[in-house]
Parts: sequence; structure tokens; C-alpha cells
Amino acid sequence: MQLHMSTWAEIESFLQRSRTIVVPIGSNEQHGPTGLLGTDWLCPEIIAREAEKSADILIAPTFNIGMAQHHLAFAGTISLRPSTFIAAIGDWVRSLALHGFEKILFLNGHGGNVASIEAAFSELYAEASFARRPAGFALKLANWWDLEGVGELARDQFPTGHGAHATPSEIAITQWAFPESVKTADYAPPIAPSGPIRDALDFRARFPDGRLGSNPGLATRERGRALVELAAQSLARELAAFSQEQPPA
Amino acid sequence: MQLHMSTWAEIESFLQRSRTIVVPIGSNEQHGPTGLLGTDWLCPEIIAREAEKSADILIAPTFNIGMAQHHLAFAGTISLRPSTFIAAIGDWVRSLALHGFEKILFLNGHGGNVASIEAAFSELYAEASFARRPAGFALKLANWWDLEGVGELARDQFPTGHGAHATPSEIAITQWAFPESVKTADYAPPIAPSGPIRDALDFRARFPDGRLGSNPGLATRERGRALVELAAQSLARELAAFSQEQPPA
Amino acid sequence: MQLHMSTWAEIESFLQRSRTIVVPIGSNEQHGPTGLLGTDWLCPEIIAREAEKSADILIAPTFNIGMAQHHLAFAGTISLRPSTFIAAIGDWVRSLALHGFEKILFLNGHGGNVASIEAAFSELYAEASFARRPAGFALKLANWWDLEGVGELARDQFPTGHGAHATPSEIAITQWAFPESVKTADYAPPIAPSGPIRDALDFRARFPDGRLGSNPGLATRERGRALVELAAQSLARELAAFSQEQPPA
Amino acid sequence: MQLHMSTWAEIESFLQRSRTIVVPIGSNEQHGPTGLLGTDWLCPEIIAREAEKSADILIAPTFNIGMAQHHLAFAGTISLRPSTFIAAIGDWVRSLALHGFEKILFLNGHGGNVASIEAAFSELYAEASFARRPAGFALKLANWWDLEGVGELARDQFPTGHGAHATPSEIAITQWAFPESVKTADYAPPIAPSGPIRDALDFRARFPDGRLGSNPGLATRERGRALVELAAQSLARELAAFSQEQPPA
Amino acid sequence: MQLHMSTWAEIESFLQRSRTIVVPIGSNEQHGPTGLLGTDWLCPEIIAREAEKSADILIAPTFNIGMAQHHLAFAGTISLRPSTFIAAIGDWVRSLALHGFEKILFLNGHGGNVASIEAAFSELYAEASFARRPAGFALKLANWWDLEGVGELARDQFPTGHGAHATPSEIAITQWAFPESVKTADYAPPIAPSGPIRDALDFRARFPDGRLGSNPGLATRERGRALVELAAQSLARELAAFSQEQPPA
Amino acid sequence: MQLHMSTWAEIESFLQRSRTIVVPIGSNEQHGPTGLLGTDWLCPEIIAREAEKSADILIAPTFNIGMAQHHLAFAGTISLRPSTFIAAIGDWVRSLALHGFEKILFLNGHGGNVASIEAAFSELYAEASFARRPAGFALKLANWWDLEGVGELARDQFPTGHGAHATPSEIAITQWAFPESVKTADYAPPIAPSGPIRDALDFRARFPDGRLGSNPGLATRERGRALVELAAQSLARELAAFSQEQPPA
Repeated sequence: MQLHMSTWAEIESFLQRSRTIVVPIGSNEQHGPTGLLGTDWLCPEIIAREAEKSADILIAPTFNIGMAQHHLAFAGTISLRPSTFIAAIGDWVRSLALHGFEKILFLNGHGGNVASIEAAFSELYAEASFARRPAGFALKLANWWDLEGVGELARDQFPTGHGAHATPSEIAITQWAFPESVKTADYAPPIAPSGPIRDALDFRARFPDGRLGSNPGLATRERGRALVELAAQSLARELAAFSQEQPPA
Repeated sequence: MQLHMSTWAEIESFLQRSRTIVVPIGSNEQHGPTGLLGTDWLCPEIIAREAEKSADILIAPTFNIGMAQHHLAFAGTISLRPSTFIAAIGDWVRSLALHGFEKILFLNGHGGNVASIEAAFSELYAEASFARRPAGFALKLANWWDLEGVGELARDQFPTGHGAHATPSEIAITQWAFPESVKTADYAPPIAPSGPIRDALDFRARFPDGRLGSNPGLATRERGRALVELAAQSLARELAAFSQEQPPA
Repeated sequence: MQLHMSTWAEIESFLQRSRTIVVPIGSNEQHGPTGLLGTDWLCPEIIAREAEKSADILIAPTFNIGMAQHHLAFAGTISLRPSTFIAAIGDWVRSLALHGFEKILFLNGHGGNVASIEAAFSELYAEASFARRPAGFALKLANWWDLEGVGELARDQFPTGHGAHATPSEIAITQWAFPESVKTADYAPPIAPSGPIRDALDFRARFPDGRLGSNPGLATRERGRALVELAAQSLARELAAFSQEQPPA
Repeated sequence: MQLHMSTWAEIESFLQRSRTIVVPIGSNEQHGPTGLLGTDWLCPEIIAREAEKSADILIAPTFNIGMAQHHLAFAGTISLRPSTFIAAIGDWVRSLALHGFEKILFLNGHGGNVASIEAAFSELYAEASFARRPAGFALKLANWWDLEGVGELARDQFPTGHGAHATPSEIAITQWAFPESVKTADYAPPIAPSGPIRDALDFRARFPDGRLGSNPGLATRERGRALVELAAQSLARELAAFSQEQPPA
Repeated sequence: MQLHMSTWAEIESFLQRSRTIVVPIGSNEQHGPTGLLGTDWLCPEIIAREAEKSADILIAPTFNIGMAQHHLAFAGTISLRPSTFIAAIGDWVRSLALHGFEKILFLNGHGGNVASIEAAFSELYAEASFARRPAGFALKLANWWDLEGVGELARDQFPTGHGAHATPSEIAITQWAFPESVKTADYAPPIAPSGPIRDALDFRARFPDGRLGSNPGLATRERGRALVELAAQSLARELAAFSQEQPPA
Repeated sequence: MQLHMSTWAEIESFLQRSRTIVVPIGSNEQHGPTGLLGTDWLCPEIIAREAEKSADILIAPTFNIGMAQHHLAFAGTISLRPSTFIAAIGDWVRSLALHGFEKILFLNGHGGNVASIEAAFSELYAEASFARRPAGFALKLANWWDLEGVGELARDQFPTGHGAHATPSEIAITQWAFPESVKTADYAPPIAPSGPIRDALDFRARFPDGRLGSNPGLATRERGRALVELAAQSLARELAAFSQEQPPA
């Protein structure tokens, strides 16, 4: 069930049977010579939609712009500063909590988002903590590549050349979902260099075509299918477990 | 051309031939008994995609959460505070301007966004004005219902019962785009009451089912099609004119 | 009754008979070759003072600096950024609401303020909406030129050359109020150009003497008197109606 | 010369002969049983206007709302939080500096403003300091009661019962300027209590009629006149000295 | 008793017998040719530790970075902007108040901190004042040089050459506490110049070696000992008096 | 070399031979029945001081308050909100960068700080990235327990009962440094429970004595000594490597 394709009354009904929601969150940023700029928000959206086919879960609209300051020297990247990102996540959560959502899982598609999302969670919890009252909600961050079994599968599929950005696993997922948008290129070198992530000009100097340690040429639609199916199953289990989690006595 | 379905190199190429981009922007908020929560961000997305079929335009990812504080007493609404919204629009524009976009048109689907979007524009321009330097970009807000001819068409289609929220025109557009998601209800009264918009509890007390002056029962898919096609043509013309506009001598 | 010329005990008494207050709000910004920099805050102050002569209304101190970033390339302009303006309006309203004012009308003298004032209202309402409590106050924005009958009178007085900035109507009002400060100039061209409003350097390039579409030479003290008297009557009626408005059941 | 009664061209001319401006700044807050709510912004405005009669000085619009959180339990008080106040002072100064003002003197009428104004100055200087560039302007805070000779005169006039809030000196100044608005009351006790200043409820509990250590009954119009005339002369000298001050070599 | 050397249970016990805490606060900034960069946070720490030897007081961790924008042109200075400083003091106080501390005394070692600390206090009180509730805590700022008798002693010790920054009194205190870190230099001129404090480049141009009106060569360890002992006694008395202070009836 | 025990001229000299500085950063928060509230800022300070005994490194003052919102239900905890923490780290880094420090390593003692510190780094880099200029500095976060070999040693020392908060390794380090402040308690159960970290009341309900998965009773001074010595050596190597790192070509 997608929140944005529902009426308010349908959401009110859903809240009678569940207080859990999943928010796909990612980034719109360069993904090397062949990766889609939307890769990082499309992947969690694809996985959540796949999970919804066989589980009664509610999917929020996708939070499609994240913290991508280091990619800003490549055309098409759109980034929030961490402070803006934290403020926006805050308003999303406050809105959802107001309606009675008590378990809010952010399914994340961008490593660069992790710190800011966790800081946003702490900022939200701190409102309750400084007021000596319970928050009333629990927040969870789940990177899709950390869902149960997914990392292992990706390592099996891509024993070398997986890397950290514009990875063949994320490319494969978008290839599976959007076969009409598969792009190709000669990757030189086949496996991109690695190194630290700092400001945008430093990033572009270190990683001239935008890849970081990866060989996206290893991606195939079939591998993408396998990753999505496994991730979707793991997500459904994770949401179920999160829903059933009880507050401390 | 959709930015998020492109590579950074493709955007770099696009920038060789155009410095203009359209950002669909809306809100995720209750739309009465039958309207989709996503109505206000889906409509500009639908119209922009229709325009792209026959014009060489670039569409940014959709800014899907806006200023909807007055709808927060209805389940499923997600709102940014104006201050958060202004900060986020700021980072979007700063990112796009960095890549060389000089004409940024926000195609808006939510009346409640107008003030905050215009305030965001002024906040951005003020950075340049206080620094005594040119901004380097021009920003334009276009509500889809204000595109050339569209208001007239809607008034022809819905001489009564159009109203101001959960209008039959916006419902018709989503019905045309998502025929599988058409919802029905008995509207009582057929035309909803009107009144001022203030805080969320006040809003819900005045407008118990979420509609404001409208009769969404008048919406049809066919009317939606006509609205989208006209709006798409007008948008393409507006973007072309905006692109050709010259800075003052 | 002017708040700043009263004691706290007098305001406490006033609150026994009314919960309504009017706040003149404007901007301090260039107004062409002959307009006073204070025009936009003087006009609402003049009108409110005129209304007070024959009605039991309470006038707050004038909020004299607004959102005028586009005028910053002309000497004497003082502007708040929208974010600062929103914060300041917020503290004014929170202060007044604390004393029991439930109807707060901002009588505005500057078009460039509108978006930020409305965004400020939403920011204030959002505090209540996110906390699931009633705001406890209603806010209204009234531009003096939109008061009942005033726009029609101005169009009658100035069928051409009214324009959008440094208009003969606002100039006429200050001429009536401050006859000793009437300034003259040769306007070339008589009617200034029109165009979009963006950052300050762009504005000065488009509108070299600061006027926008107007011919201030049409202003006369007598026309100013007529505008003030009509606006004052309309303001008094608007305040009375606002006072009597009931919250939703 | 009052900035708000001038045109932008007149200010441009003024800047040819001087880079100095005075900004009257105060607060709108309770002033005991008989003091005007506007006392603290009226006093510096009165003194600056008196000084202008015989000196070529430029007076900015009055900054009429300050930091008065401790008075909020008395009707009519309007306060900015320090953070809002600092932001607003910042935008005033940035605007004035943009036009070429290099010496900006804030003539202050409210003791409670001092810390926030000085913090605002540091916030402004810090922008330059962190950017390793000269600020380009000098800021000065002058409380009117600290102008040369004024404190001595007030002590002579009111050897007892001057106190710290709703003082006979400030009451006398407004009595002189607004004889039609003189209010009277029986002060019990004649001299109000003293004590620390904390939050608003604490303040009202300690100082039930709003006075702090003062006996406003000692104020006379004649004493007000003497204070204003002396303060005006001292202000003119202070502005002249400030104007002539040279930057370090 | 030092908070950071205690367990939470020990603090809980302390709160049974006292609701008062002292927070040493200073700055890390250049102190002339021989002064330690930490002088301004070391001095209050040293004095508080000395007071603790003979009084049952609780000392918070030292707030070691303050508002020192004007010293930023000298290597080693670390400064918060006033807005950051105010936010941080706010969180410290909110944390302490949450545990039940009702009297929080900031023992300050840096004159440049005073305005921002007082603004921070007002920002905190304003939260209560705007919410029409008691703050629940009282805040006090005590500069160590203003503790009873300390100013007099310093004037006796240093009838000339005390100055305002890198003073012999503060140098003497650190010499007494850290005899192994005493530095020497030829001061030229012996007594440094005086003047206004503005931005960092202006400061360095006026005060080339960082001293302001002082001759640190007058400092001796013995004088430092006398200052610390007197200040410690006065601090203990001040804390006792503050503890015993009752709220208004 | 400790920055706060140096003069500005000594820092200027240090900058001739190195552009690297280490900032100990931690938190002041409950550490179970026996842990010092200062544990998390004392540990990095202790390790940095040990490293300095045999290496020419520069240590900044300790950043002693971090992000500890989840511990606020235990007396003595002082926390910054993430937004405040990010702002403060920002001003520290901007200050240090201004003096020419190009490699700034934060030696962290609190897991709860990690997300906010990394978000702060991105906020700082983003200033450069949005301005299309190089940042001019590189930032590194090093948790002391992640220094080379340290995690392995801790696992050897404490094969069970290490846990995640109030760990025997951090307790051991403070025992070694402050033998006079060793506290004892009966831990029941010996190994504390584990679970998710959310708001403060939730935390206290889950972890009643403040420990999380740990048995601090396993700490010994000797183990502390071994940890500190190893960590100090690893820190020195890490700083040397960081210093020698070259920017991308």
C-alpha cells in the first residue's frame, strides 16, 4: 500500500491494524558514467514496492534528495546540507507520529545519508528527552544492502569490483527495474580508485568519472532481480519484527 | 528528459543546449474522501511528463512534500514547516545553479505552497543582493492551474463546485493518470463549505471531510485528459519563453 | 488607541472589551526619485491612525522593516531576509497572543512582504498543528490597497500610470500626511518600465530610477486624502467583522 | 535628517558628506502604572530628533521592539527572543553597510537590550573575522542615559527613587514630548522594590506594578526637557567624534 | 566535588542536599606574548577547584570555548559565534535543569563572553516567559574579577598596567597554578595600547602583540596565589548566598 | 604540546613545522554505577596526552560535551542536541582552519557522537562544495577504540562483558589515570542487558543502572595502562600518516 495513492480515510483504517510505515530515502547524485542520477532513491523505492506485493505494508512517498555534498562537482547532483536534511527528516517524522505511526523505518539507499539520518533521529529523540517525556515513536535506519542476506549475495555476485559508489549491485537493481534506461560505457580503469571522501572538488579530482572502487560493468538485470527479491523478503521480515517489538516495561 | 533517469554526463550535454529546468513541486496531504494523498505532487509530475513527450525539456525529481500544516489533522498528511521548506528549496536551487542552470521553473501543485516558495526565492535572491553580486539564476513559480488557458478550461468544465481544495480538476488529472486508483464516495454536502484556512484543528472543524468548496464527484478521466494536455502545451510554451528571456542590459 | 502610548493597565482594560489588534507593517525601501523611503510603513500607519479617530481600535507599534531585498541596490533601503522577517513576526504574534489577543490583523503596505507574512502565519499555525492543539488566535493579512473599495478608487484616480512600485496612490497618501515633505522630479519616462522582480542588481538594471510601471507625478494631496479616508473606513469595518467572527463549532 | 522621510537619492547625497548614521533602538514593554509602553523606543527617538535640529545627522527608522522577555507577563509588552533580535539587527546593519555606512551608532533606550545588541555586533564582526577580511564598518552602542553628562544630571534631578525600570528620567522625557499623554497613579510603595531579573512570572511576582526601584512620580516635564537637551548635545558630539575616528594604520 | 569525576548516583545524592552548581566558563584565545591560550578558562577552573577544597560545592566540566571572534587573527584562538555560543549554553542549562539544578552560576573568565552569556540567559528565560510558566531555575553570571574584593586586590597589586586583556592578574593566576608553564618576553611598550574592540583584523592592527592596555610583566606567582585564595573564598560565599535565595512569594 | 598551555606565538611556530592537530572529543554522561561522568572525554584526553609524551603533536582543548540525549534521564549528564553540536564543531574547525591547520583529527571517546561529528564534517565540506572552492582542510574522525590494535586488545582483555556503554575498557583507562577516583559497586546482573538506543526515558527503562551490555567489574588499572599505551602509539602513527597524506593531483 502506497501512502500517496491512498486517501486519508484509508490511512486511518491502516492505522487500526498497524502503526508501522517504511520511508524509502536516498539521494539524487551522480553515479558514474552509466548510473542513473536517481539510483539511490530508486533502489529503496523498487525494493519497498517489491515487498509490498506480498506483505501488508505501508510505503511513504520517497524522500528523494539526501546528503550528497561530495558529488556536487558532477552535473545533476542535488544535495541538502546536513542541517537542512535533519530539519526535513524531523518534519516528516513529526507529521507521521502525529497520525499515530509508532514504528518508522527509513529504507536507505545512500551511504552518505547515514550520519545525517542518525543525527536527525537523535535530534527528534532529544525533543522528548529534554522534555522528560516518552518520544512515542521508534525510528530505525535500514540500508538496503544491509538487509538480511543482501550483503552476502552482493559479495557472491561481485567478488571483486563492488566498491563503494556506483556499485554494480545498485546499477543492477535499476537495470532490472528500468530496462529501457540501461546505459553503457567503457570503464577506464575497469575498477575505479578508492580513497577518502571530502569536499566536492577533492572528490572529483580523486574519482574523475564519479565511481569509487567499483566496476558497474559487472551489473546484469538478472543479478538485479535476485537482489531485489531477496531484499524485499528481508525488508518484509524486518518490518514485521519491528512492528512486534514491545517498549520496555 | 528526466534528470533522475539520466547520467551526469547526459546532464552535462543537456546544459550545452539549455540552461532551463522544471521542478515539479507539490504536497502530500489529504484530498477529501476520494482524493489521493499524493494529488498535489502527482499533478505537476503528470503534466511535466506529458510536456516532455513533445518538447526537449529537462524535469528534475519531484519535490513531493510541501507546506501543508493545515491538513495535519487528517491521517497521511506530511508537512514541512515554512522554515524547513524554505531551507530545502534553497539547497535544491543552490545545487542546480552550481551546475549552470539559469532558469529554474517550479511547477507547483499546491496553493498552500505559494507563499513559502516565493519566500524561498527571496531568501535565495537576498544572498546575492546582500553580497552586491548578481544571483546568476532566475526563478519562476508556475501553478499548473494558472498555466495559459487552464483556469478557463477548468471553469468551463466545472462551472460550480470547483472550490479550492480537493477540486474536481486535480482529482480528474489523477484519475486520468491512475485509472486503477479511482476512489468513490457519497459527498455530503455535494459542494463542501468554504472558509478561512488556519491551524489544523480549526481546519478539520470547518471542513470535516477535508474538502474546501469543492465537489470532486464532477471529476472524470476525460476531463483530466483535457486538462493535462492543455497544461502540458502551455508549460512547454512557458518554458520556451522563460529560456529565451534575456537579462537586463 | 495606540498601544505604545498606553500603559499596560490600559491594555488590560482594552482586552476586557476586545481581543483584536491591528499591526501596521511595511518596509523601508527606495520609492523612486520622489517617494519617501518610509512610504510603505507610513501608509498603513497613516490609515490606521485615521481609522482610530472614529473607531475603538487598538494599533500596535508599526513593524517598519520588511522584505525588500530587491531594493537593496538603492541607498537607504533596509531589508530583512525572509527567514529573519518570519522569525520576528513570530515573536510579535507570540507576545500579543500571550496577552489574550485572538484576532491579529496585519495592515500591510508592501507587496514584497506578502509571501513572507503568509509564510510567517503558517509557521505560527504549524506550532499548534504539530502539537495537536488549537492555535488560540486568528491572523489576517490586509494590504491597504485591497481594503474594500480602495483598489477601485485608485483605478479611478489613476487609470494609467499606477504601476506596481512607487505608485501615485502611495505617494499621494504620504503627500497628504506630510505636506512639508513633498518632493518633485522630472520622471523620464513618465511611466516607468515593468518586468520581473529578482535580485537587487537585476532590479536596478531593469528599473534605473526605482519606479516599476508607475508615474508618481499623478499623485496629489487631495487624492491622498480620499484614499486615506476610504481606506480608514474600510479598515474599521474589516476589523469589526474580524472581531465578530466565531471559531468553528 | 530622517532616513525614512528622504528619497534614495537624498541618502546617496548624504553619503557623499558622511558615512555615519544613528539608529534609535528600544523596546515596547510595560513601564509601570503610568509609563507608556513605548517609552524605551520613544526616548532615543526624541533625543535623536532633538539632536538633528542643530546638527547634520542622519537618523534611521526606529527599531522599536527589543528584548523584553521579562516583561511579558504585563499586557502590551512585545518582545523578540535574543536570537531573533540578533538576526534582525544583523540584517539592518548588513543593509546599511551595503550602502556605504561605516559608522553605525545604536542609540539605545532599554537596558535589557544591551547584551543582545552587543552579541549582535560580535555576530556581525565574526562574519568578517572568520573570513579573514575587514568588516568595513564600526558599530557603537550608546545608551542615552550614558551620554556625556546625562547620568549626572539624572542623579542630580532624582537623588533617590531613580531605580532601574520605569525611572522618573525616562518618564520625564516622554512627558515632555507628549504632554497630552501624561498619566498619573498613586505609587504604593512610592519607591518600588529592587531585585534580580529572570523570567516573566518571576518578574511579575517580585515587581507587581512593573516598576523596579523607581518612583516615577518624581518626573516632571521640565526635567524631561533638561534631559533631552543635554542628551541631544552629547549625542551630536558623540556622533561627530565617532565620524572622525580613523581605522588603525 | 567535580561532576565529571563523579558517578550519576553521586550527583543524585548531591541533589538531595543542594540544587546549586557552578560552571567554569571561559575562552581559548591569544593572551599576548606570554599568556597561555587557555588563560580564560583555566582561571575560573583554578578558582573553582580552590573553593571546592573547603566548601561542599559541585563543579561542572569547564566550558572552555567562548566568544573570541576579535582574537581570531592570532594563531590558536578558537571561537564560537555568539549564536552558537548561545545555543550551546542553552543545552548545558537545559540538561542541568532537567536533573533538578535550580541555581546555576557561571564563573566566567572572559570579558568578551559577558554579552553572549547574558543573551543566552534571556533566551532560556524567554522559553518559559513565552509559555507563561516559571523557568524553574535561576542563572547567575559571575566574572571572577568581580567576586567580592578581587577587583580591589588586583587594583592594589597592579595600580598601573592592569589593562583589559592579557592582564597581569590573570597571568599571575596561571603562573601560580602552572609554574612549569611560565613564559617570559620583553614587552614593548611595557603597557600595551588601549582602544575599541571590533573585528579580528582591526584588533590585530591596533594591538599587534595581542595585549590590550596591560603589562603582564607585573605578574608574579605570589600575587596569583593571593588572587586565587581571595576569589575562592568569595566564590564560596556567593554560591552559599545564591543557594539560600528564595523565589518571590 | 597542548594548545591551551601555549602562547599564540608558539602555535605560530608549530604551524611552521606541521599543519596537523588532534582534538580530543567526548561526552559528559552517566557511565553506570561506577563510571565517571567524564569518562568519554577523559579517555581521549588521556590517550592524546600519553601520545604527546613521545611525539611532536599538538593537542587542542578537549571538546567535553557531546551528543548524549539518551542518557539525560541520569543525573549529571549534559548533552548538546545534534544541531547544536554540529554548529559548535563547525566553529571549532573554522577557527583552526583560519590559522592554517589543514589536517584536523577528532579523537573521539563516545559512540553516540559519531553520526553528529560526521554530519558536522559534511556540513563544513558543503560550504566549500556549494561555493565551488576547495575546503582547504581534511577532517578525520578516529574513535580511540578503533585505533590500530586497540579493539583486538580489548577483546583479548574482555572476551565477555565488554558491551557497548560503561565498558570495562573505558573504565580501566580512567582507573589507570585517576587511581584516587576508582569506584566500586555490586553489578546486578554482572553483564548488563543490551537493546536499542532511543530517547532518554526508554533508555532508562531498558538499562536501569545505565550500563549497556557491559561488566565494568572486569576493569583493572593494569588493563587500562596497556590500552592507553597501545592507543597512544597508534594515535601517533595515525597522526603521522594523516600529516603526510597528499591532496589529489
